[in-house]
Amino acid sequence: MVQDTQPIKVGIVGGTGYTGVELLRLLAAHPAVQLEVITSRGDAGTPVAAMFPNLRGRVDIAFTVPDAAALAGCDVVFFATPNGIAMQEAGALLDRGVRVIDLAADFRIKDVADWQRWYGMTHASPALVAEAVYGLPEFDRESIRGARLVANPGCYPTAVQLGFMPLLRAGVVDASSLIADCKSGVSGAGRKAEVHSLLAEAGDNFKAYGVPGHRHLPEIRQGLSGIAGCAVGLTFVPHLTPMIRGIHATLYARLTDARVDLQALFCEAYASEPFVDVMPSGAHPETRSVRGANTCRIAVHRPQGGDTVVVLSVIDNLVKGAAGQAIHNMNLMFGLPEATGIDAIALLP
Amino acid sequence: MVQDTQPIKVGIVGGTGYTGVELLRLLAAHPAVQLEVITSRGDAGTPVAAMFPNLRGRVDIAFTVPDAAALAGCDVVFFATPNGIAMQEAGALLDRGVRVIDLAADFRIKDVADWQRWYGMTHASPALVAEAVYGLPEFDRESIRGARLVANPGCYPTAVQLGFMPLLRAGVVDASSLIADCKSGVSGAGRKAEVHSLLAEAGDNFKAYGVPGHRHLPEIRQGLSGIAGCAVGLTFVPHLTPMIRGIHATLYARLTDARVDLQALFCEAYASEPFVDVMPSGAHPETRSVRGANTCRIAVHRPQGGDTVVVLSVIDNLVKGAAGQAIHNMNLMFGLPEATGIDAIALLP
Amino acid sequence: MVQDTQPIKVGIVGGTGYTGVELLRLLAAHPAVQLEVITSRGDAGTPVAAMFPNLRGRVDIAFTVPDAAALAGCDVVFFATPNGIAMQEAGALLDRGVRVIDLAADFRIKDVADWQRWYGMTHASPALVAEAVYGLPEFDRESIRGARLVANPGCYPTAVQLGFMPLLRAGVVDASSLIADCKSGVSGAGRKAEVHSLLAEAGDNFKAYGVPGHRHLPEIRQGLSGIAGCAVGLTFVPHLTPMIRGIHATLYARLTDARVDLQALFCEAYASEPFVDVMPSGAHPETRSVRGANTCRIAVHRPQGGDTVVVLSVIDNLVKGAAGQAIHNMNLMFGLPEATGIDAIALLP
Amino acid sequence: MVQDTQPIKVGIVGGTGYTGVELLRLLAAHPAVQLEVITSRGDAGTPVAAMFPNLRGRVDIAFTVPDAAALAGCDVVFFATPNGIAMQEAGALLDRGVRVIDLAADFRIKDVADWQRWYGMTHASPALVAEAVYGLPEFDRESIRGARLVANPGCYPTAVQLGFMPLLRAGVVDASSLIADCKSGVSGAGRKAEVHSLLAEAGDNFKAYGVPGHRHLPEIRQGLSGIAGCAVGLTFVPHLTPMIRGIHATLYARLTDARVDLQALFCEAYASEPFVDVMPSGAHPETRSVRGANTCRIAVHRPQGGDTVVVLSVIDNLVKGAAGQAIHNMNLMFGLPEATGIDAIALLP
Repeated sequence: MVQDTQPIKVGIVGGTGYTGVELLRLLAAHPAVQLEVITSRGDAGTPVAAMFPNLRGRVDIAFTVPDAAALAGCDVVFFATPNGIAMQEAGALLDRGVRVIDLAADFRIKDVADWQRWYGMTHASPALVAEAVYGLPEFDRESIRGARLVANPGCYPTAVQLGFMPLLRAGVVDASSLIADCKSGVSGAGRKAEVHSLLAEAGDNFKAYGVPGHRHLPEIRQGLSGIAGCAVGLTFVPHLTPMIRGIHATLYARLTDARVDLQALFCEAYASEPFVDVMPSGAHPETRSVRGANTCRIAVHRPQGGDTVVVLSVIDNLVKGAAGQAIHNMNLMFGLPEATGIDAIALLP
Repeated sequence: MVQDTQPIKVGIVGGTGYTGVELLRLLAAHPAVQLEVITSRGDAGTPVAAMFPNLRGRVDIAFTVPDAAALAGCDVVFFATPNGIAMQEAGALLDRGVRVIDLAADFRIKDVADWQRWYGMTHASPALVAEAVYGLPEFDRESIRGARLVANPGCYPTAVQLGFMPLLRAGVVDASSLIADCKSGVSGAGRKAEVHSLLAEAGDNFKAYGVPGHRHLPEIRQGLSGIAGCAVGLTFVPHLTPMIRGIHATLYARLTDARVDLQALFCEAYASEPFVDVMPSGAHPETRSVRGANTCRIAVHRPQGGDTVVVLSVIDNLVKGAAGQAIHNMNLMFGLPEATGIDAIALLP
Repeated sequence: MVQDTQPIKVGIVGGTGYTGVELLRLLAAHPAVQLEVITSRGDAGTPVAAMFPNLRGRVDIAFTVPDAAALAGCDVVFFATPNGIAMQEAGALLDRGVRVIDLAADFRIKDVADWQRWYGMTHASPALVAEAVYGLPEFDRESIRGARLVANPGCYPTAVQLGFMPLLRAGVVDASSLIADCKSGVSGAGRKAEVHSLLAEAGDNFKAYGVPGHRHLPEIRQGLSGIAGCAVGLTFVPHLTPMIRGIHATLYARLTDARVDLQALFCEAYASEPFVDVMPSGAHPETRSVRGANTCRIAVHRPQGGDTVVVLSVIDNLVKGAAGQAIHNMNLMFGLPEATGIDAIALLP
Repeated sequence: MVQDTQPIKVGIVGGTGYTGVELLRLLAAHPAVQLEVITSRGDAGTPVAAMFPNLRGRVDIAFTVPDAAALAGCDVVFFATPNGIAMQEAGALLDRGVRVIDLAADFRIKDVADWQRWYGMTHASPALVAEAVYGLPEFDRESIRGARLVANPGCYPTAVQLGFMPLLRAGVVDASSLIADCKSGVSGAGRKAEVHSLLAEAGDNFKAYGVPGHRHLPEIRQGLSGIAGCAVGLTFVPHLTPMIRGIHATLYARLTDARVDLQALFCEAYASEPFVDVMPSGAHPETRSVRGANTCRIAVHRPQGGDTVVVLSVIDNLVKGAAGQAIHNMNLMFGLPEATGIDAIALLP
């Protein structure tokens, strides 16, 4: 493919975090992409491979100061920035014909007032929020194909929405009392120097956090409501588990239709999805089975034949939960085969 | 105390697992105890400290072949054996006047038929099941004080029952739809050579297991029903998390009384309990805060003021979830101050 | 390439261990290979993907009982078996024109008596030992190109030999007093159910093992002697470190030529090697920088300008230390570009 | 003891790091101590137990702004501060009759010019350096008993000096070519928010650091020279291993006396030491066997009967390598039994 057509020119804004290095790892091996520019105000001048030694010999560019002209020369720009940056810069790029994929939360929540409450800042581009397409391919890949601006889903929201989707679409559970008990590896907290993320603090330890309210709650609630076609009630409890990559979502819902064949429901829902793997009845997916891969593995249970359905959903938070899904979106936007560059097999053990 | 009175002569049957070494660690430093005998058919002759080097210089006895006379000379015998052993041997010891604390499951379930279904064997001593006292001091310490035979609770059941107890006693939640999402470190699986417990398998990985049904389910259900005074409905999902010690139970219940002051309810319930620490409102207990300690730390939340209450309960599965609680029971049975020998501060970091 | 030519038909004997699953992960994505058969006596009938869920949807064959005819139909057979198997079966395959790559130790040591001492068994095919080529491409790739039978190096020997090679070839160190202090992740011990490899035993722990003598010692000594052109004196101390993949070799030698430019020596030695990365002066390679990759990263130091040279050498024990190097050898044997199928970028974090 | 005499009034300066919380854990349970004051400029007002939840219910004081009068009312003050603080404040306390134990490096190096080179600052109290006693009890406990000011040894220096001491005292190795290959858990880097110490960076990873020169090198060299009675040559390479606590020192020396009985030499050297455990011949000490304990376990090997001796020495870097040894020094200074308050058994698993 790369022989027949021009490579897609790619820029990355803010590539010094974990979603940044993961984008680089995947894009450097993507056969249809040419990496043009990666920006970082704080680390301008540093070769990318000096910060991330796994890229030595594979990515030879350096971080540069953000430069509008350089980014405007790209076909697509990924924002791997903290929340609040893309909303300020995406508009100008879109005006120059550059497509934008934001891995942060700026364009995920349609209700701007709600977004402003949870993120504690005034939104700079409400109009773009309305235009942005939520980049969960399993929900609506057609809209992604035609999008100029994609809001790449959060990691928890990806795992939770994929787990609840078949149940809500089929209308077989009580949507008013959903529970999502989620466990994340520490890379989900990003590459920020914070005491609570030190190995000596987070290692050999398990804890919940953000129980009173976590920013992914409104995103998940919006997504599930969109799937269900009605407002949902959701309790969302995230936890930190002492591993590097991976999210495990354990989902609980009350069945309203006791006759439904849950296994068949899930198998049919994802039969043609390249990145969702419904496991056999009785299985327990492991996060390591998707380490480094763009796959979501799901199992559905109905313990003791009762009226509570339990869904187990695992992803790699940096791949299907961030960079891999972003590239999936790029592939859709540029008419490439969906799995291009994101079909690596998970690393196990 | 040890000066004024005779030390309690202690025997341990089956001390080569993790509850065994934890009993040894605690008993070796217990001021009122003299360790008389520790048995292991497979490792007879091996000095205890050769298997567990942390005990070098502190425990100088060796494992011996089980010997009825030696055990009968003890004041109390702990069974740290696989399920199905204590039910065969406890009776003879009781007949000789020895008190027995079983850390396995043989005497935990009052419904013998139910026990036989879950444990897959015929019970050898149904009469002793009826006599045995369930050793959760926060539930009924008076009965423990007078017991000859104590069934030491399982690790998950300890964390879950302590978390739900104030809610069920006060009758402020719907007891028919309780959810216990539990996460355990790998020492909970014991010191058995099994592939799935290898560091290369369980490390950097997270998974649920036993979702269709786990042996601790009937034990928890029995305990919660006893607390609630009625049959409860419970969904119990255990998970394996890549750490050595610790259980984190995340508990969900639907409030039936919206006006209850949850924080006050929990504080009052445990005000005089030496080993339950109710954390301040908004807190998230960490498993490492109880590593090596006989403490259960609990926090109670009501996210967004809704009708779902979330309780977070952490213990060290080998201490409050096994050996520490067993010694607490021994202290009660022998009239010692409750915290004797089990008041160490948790090791953090 | 796969379009123009027939794919290489590959068989694997004994694929249920970690080198087996790693061969499968790499071969399943190798563009010039067709996986024909994988044998396991104990797990015959089990789909490969049922044992290793990362392979779901990517490898659809099942383990089969070893069958001479099926293996004889392959172009190349990898032995991922315990020591002592390949020496019994390789001969018959070679006679049928099948090339063989043994990932175990059967053909690594040229001195059969020495091998028998260290491995505690009688060698079944001394003649094949003489024929076998030691598969360290950086040492002698020409011989590998023409080989029928390749002895794939051990993990420690790979890291140690690549670290010492430039020094010994240049003759600038005292070859009689070499020290190799090596640290390995636990996957190096294999997928065997053993107590000392449990997460609860090996996690949060560090220890040396095999100090009196480890089987990789004669292999390393033979290799270093071959490089140096004289017998070497070596002290080799392996350690177990609580991680899954990775070897870090810290090598010490006494300089005999104080004027040598060590950095230049290493850079020149590996200038044209695709899988050895000499890091800049002052660097400290990390094992995670090669996680999942077929790369050896090396740094050379001379602390305080003294006469002790310190070499730091890291590999992924399952890739460059096992399956990746085996495929590198296969690529050489079949005239493929050397990096075919083994050019993935390391997974970091 | 606490009944007969006044408790020792203890102050801690700078208790928000890992040596601080470890001092608190040990002192809170020490039967002869009363914790008077703990200072922290940045966290004044915060209850100690709010920062370190393992101390809830056990330590009820809060951090306070450093106050000369409050500290002057103590019998002994521990400095658990960054380097460069104690040298400014110790003098005034000593003048008021307070004894001082510095857990930082301010008073460890007798050669002030050398100290200034390695630590990059001008020393504020060279006269106190001359007075300070190096607090390694196994080297010279008599001097510690009479000291006003103790320089508590570094973690690496403790493990390395105890490992080499018998060899150097007996004069049976070549002191000019010692090698110390050391591995530390991440708590050795302190409780500082730094990217390289994040679980996502340091987890599942192994690396050397500081090979060109580490600050513990001059301290170890000074100590070993003092033991040997002559200048020693030392190569010191520290490594970071993905665990929380523990140091494993692997020490190499060339034997000059081939007839020496190494096992007997070590056993005799430490026969009367309460905190050094010489393991049986052939043993490999594990760091977990000293987790939370004030013990150094040592094994000595002579691989293949050659002329290289290998010593394996493990400690808990926060106990024997910091807080535990500091309390050992306090016990000596105040005439208490040496093991008072520091005799806990290691936590395993």
